[in-house]
Amino acid sequence: MVKLGIIGAGRIGKVHAESITFNIKNAEVLSIADPFMSDEAAAWARSLGIKNVSKDYHDILNNPEIDGVLICSSTNTHADIAIEAIKAKKNVFCEKPISQDLAKIKEVMEALKGTDLKFQVGFNRRFDHNFEAVREAVKAGKIGDVHVVKITSRDPDAPSLDYVKVSGGIFLDMTIHDFDMVRYLSGSDVEEIYASGACLVNPAIAECGDIDTAVITMKLKNGALAVIDNSRKAAYGYDQRAEVFGSKGQVAVTNDAPSTAVISTESGVTGEKPLYFFLERYMASFSKEVSMFCDACEGKGEVPVDINDGLQPVLIAKAAKKSLDEGRPVKLSEIVF
Amino acid sequence: MVKLGIIGAGRIGKVHAESITFNIKNAEVLSIADPFMSDEAAAWARSLGIKNVSKDYHDILNNPEIDGVLICSSTNTHADIAIEAIKAKKNVFCEKPISQDLAKIKEVMEALKGTDLKFQVGFNRRFDHNFEAVREAVKAGKIGDVHVVKITSRDPDAPSLDYVKVSGGIFLDMTIHDFDMVRYLSGSDVEEIYASGACLVNPAIAECGDIDTAVITMKLKNGALAVIDNSRKAAYGYDQRAEVFGSKGQVAVTNDAPSTAVISTESGVTGEKPLYFFLERYMASFSKEVSMFCDACEGKGEVPVDINDGLQPVLIAKAAKKSLDEGRPVKLSEIVF
Amino acid sequence: MVKLGIIGAGRIGKVHAESITFNIKNAEVLSIADPFMSDEAAAWARSLGIKNVSKDYHDILNNPEIDGVLICSSTNTHADIAIEAIKAKKNVFCEKPISQDLAKIKEVMEALKGTDLKFQVGFNRRFDHNFEAVREAVKAGKIGDVHVVKITSRDPDAPSLDYVKVSGGIFLDMTIHDFDMVRYLSGSDVEEIYASGACLVNPAIAECGDIDTAVITMKLKNGALAVIDNSRKAAYGYDQRAEVFGSKGQVAVTNDAPSTAVISTESGVTGEKPLYFFLERYMASFSKEVSMFCDACEGKGEVPVDINDGLQPVLIAKAAKKSLDEGRPVKLSEIVF
Amino acid sequence: MVKLGIIGAGRIGKVHAESITFNIKNAEVLSIADPFMSDEAAAWARSLGIKNVSKDYHDILNNPEIDGVLICSSTNTHADIAIEAIKAKKNVFCEKPISQDLAKIKEVMEALKGTDLKFQVGFNRRFDHNFEAVREAVKAGKIGDVHVVKITSRDPDAPSLDYVKVSGGIFLDMTIHDFDMVRYLSGSDVEEIYASGACLVNPAIAECGDIDTAVITMKLKNGALAVIDNSRKAAYGYDQRAEVFGSKGQVAVTNDAPSTAVISTESGVTGEKPLYFFLERYMASFSKEVSMFCDACEGKGEVPVDINDGLQPVLIAKAAKKSLDEGRPVKLSEIVF
Repeated sequence: MVKLGIIGAGRIGKVHAESITFNIKNAEVLSIADPFMSDEAAAWARSLGIKNVSKDYHDILNNPEIDGVLICSSTNTHADIAIEAIKAKKNVFCEKPISQDLAKIKEVMEALKGTDLKFQVGFNRRFDHNFEAVREAVKAGKIGDVHVVKITSRDPDAPSLDYVKVSGGIFLDMTIHDFDMVRYLSGSDVEEIYASGACLVNPAIAECGDIDTAVITMKLKNGALAVIDNSRKAAYGYDQRAEVFGSKGQVAVTNDAPSTAVISTESGVTGEKPLYFFLERYMASFSKEVSMFCDACEGKGEVPVDINDGLQPVLIAKAAKKSLDEGRPVKLSEIVF
Repeated sequence: MVKLGIIGAGRIGKVHAESITFNIKNAEVLSIADPFMSDEAAAWARSLGIKNVSKDYHDILNNPEIDGVLICSSTNTHADIAIEAIKAKKNVFCEKPISQDLAKIKEVMEALKGTDLKFQVGFNRRFDHNFEAVREAVKAGKIGDVHVVKITSRDPDAPSLDYVKVSGGIFLDMTIHDFDMVRYLSGSDVEEIYASGACLVNPAIAECGDIDTAVITMKLKNGALAVIDNSRKAAYGYDQRAEVFGSKGQVAVTNDAPSTAVISTESGVTGEKPLYFFLERYMASFSKEVSMFCDACEGKGEVPVDINDGLQPVLIAKAAKKSLDEGRPVKLSEIVF
Repeated sequence: MVKLGIIGAGRIGKVHAESITFNIKNAEVLSIADPFMSDEAAAWARSLGIKNVSKDYHDILNNPEIDGVLICSSTNTHADIAIEAIKAKKNVFCEKPISQDLAKIKEVMEALKGTDLKFQVGFNRRFDHNFEAVREAVKAGKIGDVHVVKITSRDPDAPSLDYVKVSGGIFLDMTIHDFDMVRYLSGSDVEEIYASGACLVNPAIAECGDIDTAVITMKLKNGALAVIDNSRKAAYGYDQRAEVFGSKGQVAVTNDAPSTAVISTESGVTGEKPLYFFLERYMASFSKEVSMFCDACEGKGEVPVDINDGLQPVLIAKAAKKSLDEGRPVKLSEIVF
Repeated sequence: MVKLGIIGAGRIGKVHAESITFNIKNAEVLSIADPFMSDEAAAWARSLGIKNVSKDYHDILNNPEIDGVLICSSTNTHADIAIEAIKAKKNVFCEKPISQDLAKIKEVMEALKGTDLKFQVGFNRRFDHNFEAVREAVKAGKIGDVHVVKITSRDPDAPSLDYVKVSGGIFLDMTIHDFDMVRYLSGSDVEEIYASGACLVNPAIAECGDIDTAVITMKLKNGALAVIDNSRKAAYGYDQRAEVFGSKGQVAVTNDAPSTAVISTESGVTGEKPLYFFLERYMASFSKEVSMFCDACEGKGEVPVDINDGLQPVLIAKAAKKSLDEGRPVKLSEIVF
């Protein structure tokens, strides 16, 4: 049994705690810590059989029983906690992004160097059944050489302006998953990026210095092209699709819906809207990514999303922002790391 | 050039006249006759370049230039005109059904015996691109041996009660196409039939002694089973689907729509309704069936729907009616012919 | 917490034990019993935290802590164990069918009379997301009055001949789920049934006195018609579809697949096959049905599938067999109960 | 009756001649001219009832009976012939592009100025049933304000290298239809364009100084974003799709196929490939565009694609080429006209 501690008992920390308890057979959550741990949260944790509930994550890092920690705290604390965890000889599963600050990511990489600890980044969408099927088809050569990767990623509603202000911008907050997806599906790094954007959903987002609609083009190291289109708000819900086109054909995935029901009436032939948001659409992926982390902790294979996979989307997001600001394509090599 | 005469200038006569004129290169309409030929209809015929317009179909039968006639008159006249046409040495394309009266069909078969005239029956749906694709898949062995044939056939609206009264009943009027389709798709004759029906669309149809909803099960000579479901009124329009299931899999076709447009909004994901009715859905099939008739007239191959193909669905319809009336499965061999 | 005992540790008993442990928050499995309980099975049970593992189900019935039992033993023992459980004042969740013997079902009903115990039958497909969506649409009046119910139900492969021999025949073994589905989707009981069948998958099944392919027509008490088509083997996998057609339109559901991936190449446009079999397709439904049973045990609402819902499909299956044997439609009222 | 002359008897000239003859009731082709008119082509023309067959298009321009001409000659002759036709007081339907040379287009516009002649450009895809449905949905406000337009346009196979060399490059030859489609679907002009491209289908195309794969991003005057992805070769055939996303939802269209047939076997669930190429996919659109031209010639309404609609895609194509060459976004205003 892999013994885990969870740092951060917010939404995603809770998702991991429950999915480990109920779905992962070779792991258990020994401890959970959150500076704002409420009595309710503590009761919830105990109901899952978690023995140690604390307000101080050092209780986890200092516990010699713990094999690995899941860092689910707020983004700006990820890197520092990760470094502490590494020093405490813990395997680390870190929610994305490792940091919005490249220097911080570098520090984590430095800390990791020379250890044989596992370090995985929480790009959960790689473990979605649909995107996995695309990746499998590409890897199996079913579509030949990759020519064009296309990703549509739209949220069901824009976040609050308070959130927008601290989000780091759409590229670091939202598109970062899609940047990872381009790398995952194509099996290639990014060479150059051109971002165009607009504020069409809510003008107040522009006042926060951000955009809510984007089309981003990339040239990949393997010669292929990629394009992502984002919107902060699709009236019909969470739109998460991908296509990879190649020399022998195309593989495409579309949204999951609550059911396959189609109602035909005088008004048309109507199916269900996509599953509402990421908790509905990607729930199974959260179990799968942590399960693979646990396997790696037990020495079965490598982590499927390593620290470089955590770094690259941040580099791409930085290049995208630079491209948007300067109105020109930006090479990834221009981003100093 | 195959020189054709059209007997009957109603809806289907007009469809054939226009489709021959515009779409069939090796044929032309020389004459058209209708006892109720209006000035307007005559003008329309001339605008198509039809030279002879008459109120008397004998003008067509007596014209030595005419190679073949299309019998598009009212159903109760089909057989007698067909016999006259055969005697006049004309190839015959006869709209379905040849007759609702089996004795009359026998007379036509007798008249035809010993001649080398072509005689085709207007089961146009065999020439629909979708049903052709099903038949091709079955014939090519893609689904293996046929186990179950399923046909859904629903009209967009019930006909007038006046029409219902003279229609011969739903099986002879509407299901007859589906009976033909079962034979066409399965490549087998029918052995036994069980019909269940109800009057659910409009109770006045029951007062006419007819039903408007039916589910009909068949045992085929090749051992397979078949089922047809009919309704006189589908709120969403003309529903024309088929599936053939076999030892190696299934082939299925669904409806055609005016476009592939799908609109996703807060209310759902909505596509278009099926093409409204048979003129919209099956227009191309009318050209194709007559084109094959013309080819046969020119000695290129046999007619694709021969007089036995015209007879069988009438036999099946009679058996279906007997089954409905007597509340038991009826063997086709019980129908005296 | 509802305290449960599971009688029978075969495939379905294990499914329930795991789904209660991991997915049902207000219930726990206290005991499990199976006359053939292996050491492995006992170890598996303990790993789930089940305290009492026994070879004798009386240990469960005699345990005063137990609120309800799940009867997952072989079909021929369901009724007798159910009666014992009722006498022991346990709520009962009984796998389908209660019995293949109507007299036995009657005994269970007698035993239940006058108690306020909950008795639920395991027709899990009612809790499948797709079929629930159909039922919701029908109940909400979206398709108006029900005219025709259509169910396609095909297994991915025929069972062993040994199984076929003791299965009670296709109607009691396989179609019974579809009979329940007709009642569930239409909200109506069945009046009359006509069954046609054939042995097309494997001739050895005929030698066992059974069929492997069936088309079954029903007249419902509410005036609607229904049709089920079954096959013991669909080459492309588990085919589980339903349509309900009514005065205002149609609601239809199709299969679930492992992903939405579609690969387009020179050979065509290919999607995934359906989820392989019932464990893959219906897993979530097993949790949901037991969850509703537990709620009922706690006094929150009634059981969603009561003993009459367990009886009716057996009556229909008996009528179907009689229809097949006698080659005529059979009224449900002909089946003596 | 509108009396038409067709200049150029190549593939598209023939398509127009046949579609006018067979499908357009208020028009007839009086004359056809082609410098390389063969005996076969002349015979074909006469079989359609075209009276005047010539090697010199001046025979058409000089014929006072002719109301309008269709310019279907090679691209580099379009503009000069158009100017001659205008001077001869003929209405003009000009195949796309008017010219690859902006100065030539200007000359045509000058010639047209002050006349009341009709001038239509052959952007036929606007008359495709799918794209019309998208435009109708957008115009009807069903998706609210336009935020993102997405077009996928891939040919089934790359043209010959000889053709590539004289094609004017992918943007003027192939993408020009998609540039028009962006304007048509969005109802907006283009402000700025960024083109990324690669040569992935055939390296010999790069040696001709062209690309075969492109992703092109646009900012529209109405604030929306647009993206086109092109490939010269999709292994599965002609891929012609579009999506428009807006404040209230999305409308999307996909490809047409020869039939709706889906074959499910052990290998998967396989539908047909798209209709092979533009003659198959867009045939009906050729009739419709010329029909609207004829209506305009008769004074019923304006031409649906005017000379500015012919100019704009050429401007956009020039800007796209400049963007590709200079590796930066280019404003349409940078293109001197």
